[in-house]
Amino acid sequence: MTHSPSSIRINEQRFKTNFEALSRIGATAAGGVHRPALSAADLEARAWFRERIEAAGLEYACQRPTGDAAGNQSAVLRGNRADAPHFLLGSHLDTVPNGGRFDGALGVLAALEVLQTIKEAGYIPVVCLEAINFTDEEGAHLGLLGSRALTGKLTSADLGHPNLGVEEFESGLSRLGLTRDGILGAYREPGMIAGYLELHIEQGPTLAESGEEIGIVTAIVGIRRLRLRFIGRADHAGTTPIPRRRDAGRAACTFTAHAWEAVLRDFTDCAINVGNMRFEPGIFNVVPAAVTLDLELRASSKQGLAALYDALVHLAQQESKEAEVELEITLAEDIPPATMHPTVQPVLIECAVAAGYTYRSMPSGAGHDAQSFADICPTGMIFIPSVAGASHSPKEFSHWQDCVNGADLLLQAALELAHVPT
Amino acid sequence: MTHSPSSIRINEQRFKTNFEALSRIGATAAGGVHRPALSAADLEARAWFRERIEAAGLEYACQRPTGDAAGNQSAVLRGNRADAPHFLLGSHLDTVPNGGRFDGALGVLAALEVLQTIKEAGYIPVVCLEAINFTDEEGAHLGLLGSRALTGKLTSADLGHPNLGVEEFESGLSRLGLTRDGILGAYREPGMIAGYLELHIEQGPTLAESGEEIGIVTAIVGIRRLRLRFIGRADHAGTTPIPRRRDAGRAACTFTAHAWEAVLRDFTDCAINVGNMRFEPGIFNVVPAAVTLDLELRASSKQGLAALYDALVHLAQQESKEAEVELEITLAEDIPPATMHPTVQPVLIECAVAAGYTYRSMPSGAGHDAQSFADICPTGMIFIPSVAGASHSPKEFSHWQDCVNGADLLLQAALELAHVPT
Repeated sequence: MTHSPSSIRINEQRFKTNFEALSRIGATAAGGVHRPALSAADLEARAWFRERIEAAGLEYACQRPTGDAAGNQSAVLRGNRADAPHFLLGSHLDTVPNGGRFDGALGVLAALEVLQTIKEAGYIPVVCLEAINFTDEEGAHLGLLGSRALTGKLTSADLGHPNLGVEEFESGLSRLGLTRDGILGAYREPGMIAGYLELHIEQGPTLAESGEEIGIVTAIVGIRRLRLRFIGRADHAGTTPIPRRRDAGRAACTFTAHAWEAVLRDFTDCAINVGNMRFEPGIFNVVPAAVTLDLELRASSKQGLAALYDALVHLAQQESKEAEVELEITLAEDIPPATMHPTVQPVLIECAVAAGYTYRSMPSGAGHDAQSFADICPTGMIFIPSVAGASHSPKEFSHWQDCVNGADLLLQAALELAHVPT
Repeated sequence: MTHSPSSIRINEQRFKTNFEALSRIGATAAGGVHRPALSAADLEARAWFRERIEAAGLEYACQRPTGDAAGNQSAVLRGNRADAPHFLLGSHLDTVPNGGRFDGALGVLAALEVLQTIKEAGYIPVVCLEAINFTDEEGAHLGLLGSRALTGKLTSADLGHPNLGVEEFESGLSRLGLTRDGILGAYREPGMIAGYLELHIEQGPTLAESGEEIGIVTAIVGIRRLRLRFIGRADHAGTTPIPRRRDAGRAACTFTAHAWEAVLRDFTDCAINVGNMRFEPGIFNVVPAAVTLDLELRASSKQGLAALYDALVHLAQQESKEAEVELEITLAEDIPPATMHPTVQPVLIECAVAAGYTYRSMPSGAGHDAQSFADICPTGMIFIPSVAGASHSPKEFSHWQDCVNGADLLLQAALELAHVPT
């Protein structure tokens, strides 16, 4: 099978100007971006994005300036039939705290650029093409909030346990003119979703080290986020003999050290992260009464994720018993692994080959909005290299030529998959 | 040598009424007390204490309603000569966050009760007797602040590194009408300090388990407080291969687990506590960029403390090197071990025996204001049993009869050591 790329290309200069303008919203002294979902910077980015959509002559297709009922913001290029299903190209404009400029932003801007390029070329797609900015991919409040709401994967129960608590969440939503009760209204019938493509930086070192220009994603790992609460007893740290202590901190640290040993020994295909530990009362001379530990598990298969979960929960129970502390486990998030569509991957490969890019097929260790779509429509993802693999940090960087390559590949794949007559 | 106790006794009912009234200031729902130094509750306790001093007909001997230049509050019963040196009886009214009712408060109220009892008996001491409430024994800002300022052990450098930062410290001081620059003005010439006695709960289980009624303290352990900062790199927790991570949290937890192993194996006479760990940025999906760990070491000899310090610093350096993270160590506090005075201990023992109390000589694992005085005047400490050894917790409890025994022993020892003609 051979494939000829269309003759149109994205507008590199316009794409770069947009990228630089967006990078200034929430910019940090360290050269990164601090733009958590629902923050003031996120609001500013939304206003800017809406203005860009309208300046591009595209349709801003949301009821509110800040987006749909879940805060998702869309630009639409109507197809032959204005009520045809939508083929979505998207990512997210929010960042982790003190994150980088590329994660999420690149994919949203590339999607916008693709629509603008197709519109300017005078092409009319068969389906409607939509460039979308999803709310809170990073999980300041609830990971993949926007894409899960849109695809019907978010439950009322999820909305009752946001990461920073209900009060913070509602206060953030109110800034966008949204309510917690309204969020599930962002749902769309699967029949109205023709497909989904996402361009993203790899966020790992694999492509940068191998020298390949493009990654075609095969599957997105599943993520399980647990909150382990070790509950001991506050005691004077100078007078309580060590064997009599019920030290929640010691139990949490021993668990963490042993969890790492277990992962390195038995789960070499998986990854974990202990992202936070909060000590109570948290002072020098008091034995920690309680420690809350944020643990994240990642695996590319359901079986792998289940086995990792079982092993670490068992270990936490053992350590707690030994340290004579109580253990409470809360499942904060549970996102199953997602396989990319078997018909989309070959199209992405053909387009990459036709454009002369070197590529590799690879799993994604990071979660992405694409996983919300994997089981309801043809879904695919394109990676470009991250220098040194740095991500979720101000040091996150991709060479601009790689960004352009990725956006051009997104354009070619969109033309092909959305059956745009060229 | 035999010893006849004087016929006077403290007023149990008044002592108890005062104790209960003070327990209500900063009382928590859990039955404890939250009264950190320089807090609103501390201010309220100071106002109450001053009122009690004046109601007792004693002299409130401070320039300000809130105390001297370091916030220490004193009641004085003048001796034959009004300008004679002062024999101090004291402790502190501040508590750890969510602490108990007895720690500190008991000693201050017993000191007040002793002066009031002696005054009512019409006895005139040779030296001046002083009951004193020291500022911030627990170290909300700077441990033993008041007693160290009074004895000249606090330096300007110490004042530059309070535990919650300079801004919080100065804001707390301003509530008391004090300034950071003025604190060292609380210093008194050693020649004006005739001696120091302190009654305190044991805060450990030794007396409660052995059934003895009184502990005569032999030495107070030295305390070294370190802040270890492990500095790694923020990275995406799903995409950064484990061997490439520089995980500050993993290094801090592994250090903690190994530090405990080393203490249990090589330093069985010492104690440590990892009271707090603060993760940055502290979220599920970012490899911790930095962790600040609050480590406390305790040992009853200078040599023991130095050896423990060397071993743990070496271990932290090793772990950091292995995890490829940077390590910064700050010495937040360094209080040398303090031996109680060899002439005071026998007097306390004679008084205890004469009163018919069972007793044991024992070291104090906790730090106390008494250690500020140990090298400048005859200094002694009396312990009473703590039920189950619980302390720095709402569960802190001592039987009231033990509190009365301790206060009566403080009275007898004060009469003897301050040469009060009875």
